[in-house]
Amino acid sequence: MIQERFSQRIQSVPRSFIREILKVTADPSIISFAGGLPNPELFPVQEMSRAARDVLDEVGPAALQYSTTEGFPPLREAIAARYVAKGVQVDPDHIIVTTGSQQCLDILGKILVNPGDTVVMERPGYLGAIQSFGLFEPVFQTVSLQNGGPDLDELERIFETAHPKIFYAVPNFQNPSGMTYDHAARQALADLLKRYPDVLFVEDDPYGELRFAGSPQPLLFSLTRGRSVLLGSFSKIASPGMRLGWMVVTDDALRDMAVRAKQASDLHTSTFTQQVMARYLADNDMTRHIARICQRYGEQCEVMCEALDVSMPDGLRYIRPEGGMFVWIELPEGYRAMELFDLAIAAKVAFVPGTPFYVDGSGEHTLRLNFSNSDPKRIREGIDRLAGCMQTFLEASSPSR
Amino acid sequence: MIQERFSQRIQSVPRSFIREILKVTADPSIISFAGGLPNPELFPVQEMSRAARDVLDEVGPAALQYSTTEGFPPLREAIAARYVAKGVQVDPDHIIVTTGSQQCLDILGKILVNPGDTVVMERPGYLGAIQSFGLFEPVFQTVSLQNGGPDLDELERIFETAHPKIFYAVPNFQNPSGMTYDHAARQALADLLKRYPDVLFVEDDPYGELRFAGSPQPLLFSLTRGRSVLLGSFSKIASPGMRLGWMVVTDDALRDMAVRAKQASDLHTSTFTQQVMARYLADNDMTRHIARICQRYGEQCEVMCEALDVSMPDGLRYIRPEGGMFVWIELPEGYRAMELFDLAIAAKVAFVPGTPFYVDGSGEHTLRLNFSNSDPKRIREGIDRLAGCMQTFLEASSPSR
Repeated sequence: MIQERFSQRIQSVPRSFIREILKVTADPSIISFAGGLPNPELFPVQEMSRAARDVLDEVGPAALQYSTTEGFPPLREAIAARYVAKGVQVDPDHIIVTTGSQQCLDILGKILVNPGDTVVMERPGYLGAIQSFGLFEPVFQTVSLQNGGPDLDELERIFETAHPKIFYAVPNFQNPSGMTYDHAARQALADLLKRYPDVLFVEDDPYGELRFAGSPQPLLFSLTRGRSVLLGSFSKIASPGMRLGWMVVTDDALRDMAVRAKQASDLHTSTFTQQVMARYLADNDMTRHIARICQRYGEQCEVMCEALDVSMPDGLRYIRPEGGMFVWIELPEGYRAMELFDLAIAAKVAFVPGTPFYVDGSGEHTLRLNFSNSDPKRIREGIDRLAGCMQTFLEASSPSR
Repeated sequence: MIQERFSQRIQSVPRSFIREILKVTADPSIISFAGGLPNPELFPVQEMSRAARDVLDEVGPAALQYSTTEGFPPLREAIAARYVAKGVQVDPDHIIVTTGSQQCLDILGKILVNPGDTVVMERPGYLGAIQSFGLFEPVFQTVSLQNGGPDLDELERIFETAHPKIFYAVPNFQNPSGMTYDHAARQALADLLKRYPDVLFVEDDPYGELRFAGSPQPLLFSLTRGRSVLLGSFSKIASPGMRLGWMVVTDDALRDMAVRAKQASDLHTSTFTQQVMARYLADNDMTRHIARICQRYGEQCEVMCEALDVSMPDGLRYIRPEGGMFVWIELPEGYRAMELFDLAIAAKVAFVPGTPFYVDGSGEHTLRLNFSNSDPKRIREGIDRLAGCMQTFLEASSPSR
């Protein structure tokens, strides 16, 4: 009785294919490169336990009470201080703490996107952003992503013709592609954005601190002198299950609207988890903790790339990431990752076919591998299984075009 | 540069006047009946501390990892078991855990409300729902609320003429009015809803367990045999700062859409707070804890009502609540609570003028008092100050009509 009464907007959001995959891969005999999970061995469990105890002992009831929509001031100060230590000028008053950085996308969609407005994404782009912005019924345009940055001519044509509200990008170790904008691309993009001040650049940076190779690059937030919106998260550097992210918004009117939308959405982010995280940051050496994560992920990535080099059939291309959690593979044009997926599941190895990361359903020859949540032994075994499937697949399939 | 580019929907959501009031009342010399805070003296601080420690010691990293959008299964089971113990048949699989019950409103707005659709609220109604649904640009219609229930003839006329998507109500100890639907009103409303199956009834029940007088009433969820959506919250019975609420949705398609919207909004509710709450529920006697809250709130309410009886000038009416956290006052028609508010702040006592609880800006003669977050001594002193202001005000003001 109710089905036909759903809103237009929810009908434009597909159920996440990745959620379906994760159900398939719950079988522990499957080596899964499908998820996007940080390695739980690196979670600071004892440190969080101490922080929780200390907060409840010392702060007591206030840690369990309602609090402000903007977020817990000492946590906002700690987030700002971590940027400042890296030379990025961020004012604590410009930070809104969110229920994970995913919520930032919901808030920005709410306050900026009218149905039919253009939102520009990278191609491929972050699935969670496609879903989140998708709720507000935009027209998506996409800019192709090469290793080094987006195609800026293509981007300018879109800016010029479609007058987008938002350009959303993940310039560091992107999900799904693992690609990183190089210095020249960042500078050129900052120059382009300056010429199109009506386009709000949203710089999502959940992986930026997970660099294990290459040289650090400046944030677009710095290069645009704070005219963009910067999103951050504790999910990949401390704990995803605490659901703590943030947005840095220098424009007063935009921030006021964001607070209004946040309040209507869930009043505020958990006081308790905010206070525990603030305490954790005050009492622990986050820099050292992140260095440990980078070292481990760097090793796991290295093992995966070596295994790919050794065992993959000819004609496959992949991008060697400088950080983050993902390796992106392109099959020779015409081969379909969805068909490979079925073979792979039968061989007890899983990945994510690339199509969900394309708003137009293309990318059938691409797939994403996650290396953060498997140890080297399982990575080698999993790539070996996958290589076997690819060999079988490439021999058996005739290209569809 | 950005202001004119905001979405239609955010421009229809007013900045919360109550937030502004709470800033004024941060001054500790002001006795504030303005907030809606539970009494923090009753928060189970030590119990939560033990639960957090036990979860991190025993479950470890999984308590800090990503988890499913539907929620932590043992928490969903514990929520269902508490309903079943009270004779309400709830299946754990029908529960979605949310980031506070406020998020349920955002999710329901997202999946059901197209711009221009009718949403029916109570008059006066919960401000957070006006804000949350407001984002999805509905036409609000309101049904007047008497002590005992909504005007069902008026409600049926609205159902018949406006074909609303949603009727949202708080049948137990409503915020702001403190009113409760009596048994006859509930049965008649259930019968009416049965005749209008296209109207989704959303029963928000954050205060239902805070009954300190009168007799328990059945949930509409039971009377409609699960055809309505039931919202619940740990905010008033355990901790608001943990941001844990839930929705019970028996309809499979509706639940599937709600999960999709929840995922796009914030992926899932904090794994950590869910596991801590599940542990707290397993290891503590929640029924006894809630009985303590009810006893205290009952005493505080009694003190407030007695003080009102003794010191209030003639011509004021108020409703004596059977539970919850609020007393609702009607000034004689023509007197304006906003003007009284200025006098009250000067006299160091605060309340919330009633107008924000009316979608049409009416209710100028109403105001809300909170009794949960003040001790008897401050309640007596605050009502005394307020009575003085009212006397001054009633003598000085000439009614505006």
